[in-house]
Parts: sequence; structure tokens; C-alpha cells
Amino acid sequence: MTFESDFLQPIISGGSVPDETTLEMMRLSLFDWAACGRAGADEPVSRIVRAMILAEGGRGECALFGGGAAPMRGAALVNGTVSHALDYDDTHFAHIGHPSVAVCSAALAVGQSVGASFDDILMAALIGAEVSVRVGVWLGRAHYQTGFHQTATAGCFGAAAAAARLLGCDADQSGHAIGLAATRASGLKAQFGTMGKPYNAGIAASNGVEVALLARAGFQARTDALSCALGFGETHAGVATQVPGGWLFPDISHKFHACCHGLHAMLEALGHIRVDPDNVEKVEIFTHSRWLTVCNQPAPSTGLGAKFSYRMTAAMCLAGVSTAALDSYSDATCADPRLTALREKVTVIADDTLAETAARVKVTAGGKIQLGEHDLSTPIPMDKRADKLRAKAAAMLGDRAAESLWQAVRQGDTAALLTV
Amino acid sequence: MTFESDFLQPIISGGSVPDETTLEMMRLSLFDWAACGRAGADEPVSRIVRAMILAEGGRGECALFGGGAAPMRGAALVNGTVSHALDYDDTHFAHIGHPSVAVCSAALAVGQSVGASFDDILMAALIGAEVSVRVGVWLGRAHYQTGFHQTATAGCFGAAAAAARLLGCDADQSGHAIGLAATRASGLKAQFGTMGKPYNAGIAASNGVEVALLARAGFQARTDALSCALGFGETHAGVATQVPGGWLFPDISHKFHACCHGLHAMLEALGHIRVDPDNVEKVEIFTHSRWLTVCNQPAPSTGLGAKFSYRMTAAMCLAGVSTAALDSYSDATCADPRLTALREKVTVIADDTLAETAARVKVTAGGKIQLGEHDLSTPIPMDKRADKLRAKAAAMLGDRAAESLWQAVRQGDTAALLTV
Repeated sequence: MTFESDFLQPIISGGSVPDETTLEMMRLSLFDWAACGRAGADEPVSRIVRAMILAEGGRGECALFGGGAAPMRGAALVNGTVSHALDYDDTHFAHIGHPSVAVCSAALAVGQSVGASFDDILMAALIGAEVSVRVGVWLGRAHYQTGFHQTATAGCFGAAAAAARLLGCDADQSGHAIGLAATRASGLKAQFGTMGKPYNAGIAASNGVEVALLARAGFQARTDALSCALGFGETHAGVATQVPGGWLFPDISHKFHACCHGLHAMLEALGHIRVDPDNVEKVEIFTHSRWLTVCNQPAPSTGLGAKFSYRMTAAMCLAGVSTAALDSYSDATCADPRLTALREKVTVIADDTLAETAARVKVTAGGKIQLGEHDLSTPIPMDKRADKLRAKAAAMLGDRAAESLWQAVRQGDTAALLTV
Repeated sequence: MTFESDFLQPIISGGSVPDETTLEMMRLSLFDWAACGRAGADEPVSRIVRAMILAEGGRGECALFGGGAAPMRGAALVNGTVSHALDYDDTHFAHIGHPSVAVCSAALAVGQSVGASFDDILMAALIGAEVSVRVGVWLGRAHYQTGFHQTATAGCFGAAAAAARLLGCDADQSGHAIGLAATRASGLKAQFGTMGKPYNAGIAASNGVEVALLARAGFQARTDALSCALGFGETHAGVATQVPGGWLFPDISHKFHACCHGLHAMLEALGHIRVDPDNVEKVEIFTHSRWLTVCNQPAPSTGLGAKFSYRMTAAMCLAGVSTAALDSYSDATCADPRLTALREKVTVIADDTLAETAARVKVTAGGKIQLGEHDLSTPIPMDKRADKLRAKAAAMLGDRAAESLWQAVRQGDTAALLTV
């Protein structure tokens, strides 16, 4: 048994059975993923990738967000890209990244192709997501800080695991799929702020489906290529962190602001501050240094750039511009003189005494100082989380479509997940 | 203009025009590539990848080695894998790797789809190969030694350049294609000795086609993602070597032994030694240390393993087993007691005073010492090279098929390149 088997084997083999709360968390993530995918279907990156895949033709077994259908690998590429296009999907801070975009896209593509039940797809997605998270934890923060996009890299292993399960791969074949994922996985943070970021998620989903299909057909790869000498970990700045037992997926965070998750603790903290935006003299944001290479664009000029900017989103929040609404993130917002004036008063300060999920804010306005603090790891009760996710979906899709999507997830209606 | 433009721009833009000798060398590589692809069409890895792509269906615009046709991305994946399956294709030692497998597969797939002329496909392949080599040189040996398979990684950039040219991408779109290649490229040396090695070449070809298609459709990526902070070079142990001017592709080497190119200098050196294999007491192989992580399997048990073994191929050569013939590399050869006894007398010694293209051998037999030395960079006249390549193709495909393939390349018959 290879080393990675130690931390992946119980999950991939089905030896570790998730409890109902864990499954329910995956259901919520699947709902949120589908809502994000539907809402992102007309983004420019979504249209470009979907058009490329539709032009190939072929067996239309798997539905695409935005319409049409494609073979498994192509559908996973499209839906992975589309569901990450708005940067509004879930985040796992230990992972570090967004597990659902790669894993749900792979599971839905393969699940539709083989005619799997909703429950089987849900279980495969959960297993894939747990594999993503565990590989991400094993690779560690160094991998991310070096410049790799864990959503794409660790995500490829998770997508492979989900696809392998739905294809009925045995343990040996699953090992080959994971080994092949090591040579197939890619994705750089350098593409953040461009169409390349959502594409990275599509890459992971499609790669995962591909390697599982090959393994199922008898492809022989090096099965320990994640952890072996010159393997994926060693070549990609992985640090082989000890991975805890139990299911890690349930620590998943869902986004309630339509921007990089690194900004959310700040936005929650600022949400409690009440000031007249015209009176603000100084805004200090304290955050863990690891976010400074992720979402600290000082003066973005595009809506996409704003989603990766402490200063811009802080200005939006203080000026009462909704950070939950997708259309707040626009070039016009970035050019608004009132907002840019406010943005210029914001300073971002690294503070490694804070947890990576936490932020502190200090707002000076009219000579008065207000302080705020928030940690995203503060638990949210499941029913409140469901309510927040349904409200988020309604804001993106309208009440009716959000409700029918919610019913699709509650009733296990796979077909209704992807198409309205 | 980004840094990589400095060493890629004249090639991609067409500002640097190749001379006829350079074009003729590409013609020879295209011939050799097609011969290897046809000969490798029934390998297990070829059958698995081809079956996966054929099962998708879709627009059959691009012929596959071994029969059938597929859309561009799928055809590039299949033909890249198939043409590298025998490990018999060309090598560029500065690159470090095998440029034609990724680049020709991408160029043929896109060329057939858009109905390009043979000359346009040839020029695109040459430009792509030159981009591969230049990116490989820029990444440097550290990239390869760290564990990355330059054929796949640098090859993705070359395949992207070839595909972008045939798709009619303008300079801006070509820049986006190269930037996207940075987030899409992957491939580990850890898969050497498994089906994963040829698959890596297919990955590069398919990725290159994909990113060019996306760029042509308006996909916006970070265009300096090869060389920027946290870009491909920085994250993948690239050392940003200064890249010389002029065309580097013509230094290409063609294989005349059906095994890893790292073994060829030794085999040429041993080829001049005449001994009774039963009298051999000791064989010492001196080679540059960089090969020791590439092709130094001490006691392989499979034909594939033998292709990456100094000791096994030295024994084969001294015992008179043809190292040019594909079927010499078998499990039976590895199990032959006469050969394994000889193999046990072979010692491999690192000697970094040797060029990477050179080897020395010292054979002690019957109390007598014989010395040999060879450097693969010793030039071969073009006509002699063509003769050797035609003889190699005839050995793989039979005289008739080799001759018709030769005529296809001489007469510019694209369709006849891939199908008999």
C-alpha cells in the first residue's frame, strides 16, 4: 500500500462511511454549485468554452449549464469552468480552494453518462470532494503559496476519485486513476483575475474524468505518483502534511459575497460598522499574509479585478454597495469616483496572529474609531445555512428557479439540476 | 512586450524565416514521426486512448493512427500518445525531450480540420517545434531534473504555437494561447516506464490545441504566465536560461535504437566493440549523471523497462540482440538467463566531464580491455540521415508502407501521412 493510500484509501474504498450531516452538507454544496453554474452560464468564459465543446459534437450524454450536451470529458470541462465563472462557489480553507466545482462537474458528467442514481452521484461527489480536501491538506499551504491553484491541482485528484467511483473502478483501477491524475493535474494562480481561473476548475474536472476513463479501460500508470520520489508532491512544492482522520469536507464554507473568499471575513466584519462614507478618514484591514498574493489588487479597473481586491470591496461595503449582488462587480463600480476616493483611504496590513479565516477592521470616521472582527470558521447551524443558500440562489436566479432547484436537490432529480 | 516574447516573438510572429535545410529537417522529423505513429498504433496504450476518444463520437475531421477519426482535441491526444508509444521518435537534447510527438500531432489535427496545405502544416509544425525547444531551453535542465517531462510541459507551448498558427490567431491571440498553455501544461517523469510517458505527449498535443482554440475564440488569459512572478517557470523549477538566437530545431536527433535516447551514445560506442559475450568479465559505462534518473533501471523485467536500462541494453548489444528492432524489447529478453548474466557484469558510472550527448564504454573480456566513445552531436549528412530514417521506417512498417510514407512527405500528401 502506497503512502497516499493511507490517507485516501478509506475514502476511495468506501471503508469510511459518512454520517447524514456530512451527506446533507454535500447536498447543500451541490445545490449551491448548481445555482452558481446556472447563474454563470452566460459569462464570456462560459460561452467560449461551451462553444468549443459543442463544436466537437459527439455523444450528448451530459447536460451543460446554459444548454446543449456533450460527452463526459467535454461536459466536465464546460461545467467546471461555468460553475466557477462567478467565483461564488464553496470554499474549503484547509483544502485550500473550491472543491465542488471540479468534483460536482465530474460526478454529474459521469453520473449522467452511466445512468447513475442521484444518491450515487451525491455519494461520488462527496467522496471526490473529501479526496480533493485531503490531497489539498497533504500538499499544504506551501503548494498554494508557491503559485499552484489547489482548486485545479488537488481538485483533479478529487474529480478522478468521483469519476472512478461512478465508472465502477475497482481498487486497482482507482489507484491507476489517482496515479494518472498526478501527471495530468495543472493550474496556476497566475491566472487569477482572468478567465483562466474558472478554466482551471474545468481543467480539473475534465482531467479527472479522463484519467478515470483510462484507468477503467486498463491503463497502467504509476499508482504512487502523488507521493513518490519526483512525484506530484515533490515536484509541486507539496510538504506532505499529516492528514487528520475523519471527514474533513463538512468544514466547507459557502460564499455569501460574490467575490474571492479571502475577502469575506473582512466584509462580515465591516458589515457591522455604520459610518457616513463621506466622513471616512481611514480604513485599516488586518488579514493573514497568505491572502496578500490572492486578493489584494490595490486599484482594480474591472469587475473581475474588484472580486480580488480588499480595498475595492471594503469601499463598496462601506458605501452601501451590495457585495452579495453579482452586478455590483463592474467596471463602472471600479471607476465610480466616490468609491475610488474611499478605496484610497483603505490600507491592508498583514497580521499573522489572525487565523486565515479571520479578519479585523479599524475604521476611523469623523474622528471616531470603530473596530470589527470576524472568523468564517464560526459554525452556522444547518437550517440557517440552508436558508442563506436559498436566499443566495434566489438573488442569482430568481425565486422560482431557485425554488425548483431546491426541490430538485431535495427530491433527487438529477436532470433538473443542470437545466431549468 | 513580455519577456517570453523576446525569445518566442520572432518565431511565433513569422519574423524569423527558416532556411531550406531547417525545413528539410522538419520534413524528416515529420516522416519519422508518422512512421513511429503507424508502428505504435496497436500498442496497448494506443488502443486504450483511441477507444476512449472514438467512444465520444463527434466531428471526425482528423485521422487517428490506427484508424478512425475524431475532433481536433481528441485526435491530438490520440496521435500524441500513439506516436510516443514506442519511444522511437526524435529528441532534442537542448529542449530536453521529444518535440515532434506533441507538435506534429497538434499541427496535423488542426491542419486537417481547417483544410490547411501540407506546406502550411509543415511550417506550423516547425514553428511549434522551435517554440517547444526554446521554452525547454529557457526552463532549463533544472526543470527536467526536478521531475518534469519537458516533452509534455515545453511541448504544450509548442503545440499551442503550431495550433494557433494554423487557426490563424493574430499576435494578441497567440499571446493568450501561450499564457493559457502555462496553466494547462503538465507531465511528470515519474510516469517513465509506464503508459503514462506516451500519454504525457498526448496531453501536450491536446492541451496545445485546446488553448489555441480558446484563444482564437477570444479567451483572455494572462499572456506573460510563462515567465511572470508565480508563473510557469517560477512554479516549475524553471531557471530562465538565456535562449540563443537563430533556429535551434535543426540540432534535432533521430533515434536509430528503439529505446530511451539517453542510451544511444552508449549503444553507438558499444557497437564498435567485438567480444564473445560469454567471455565478458566487466562492462563499465560512463555517462553524464543527468541520465541516471532517466534510463538507469538496473534490472528491468518488462520490455518497456528494458528501454530505460543501461545495463539491459548494453547486455543486448554485446550479445548481438538488435537494439534497433522493436520486438527485441520484450519480457522474454529481460528474463533470458544469458542476457541477465551479462547484465550483472555492467556497471554504470556517472561522469560529468562527458557531454550529455556522449558516452564512454570500457569492456573487459578475456583479460583484454576495449574502449569506445561516441557523441550523438556529431553531425550526420542530410542524405545519410534520410537513408537511415527510411531504413528505420522500413524495419518498422515494411518496405512498401515506408516507401509510400516517404512519397507522401516528398509530395506533400497530408492524408497519406496518417493512414496507409
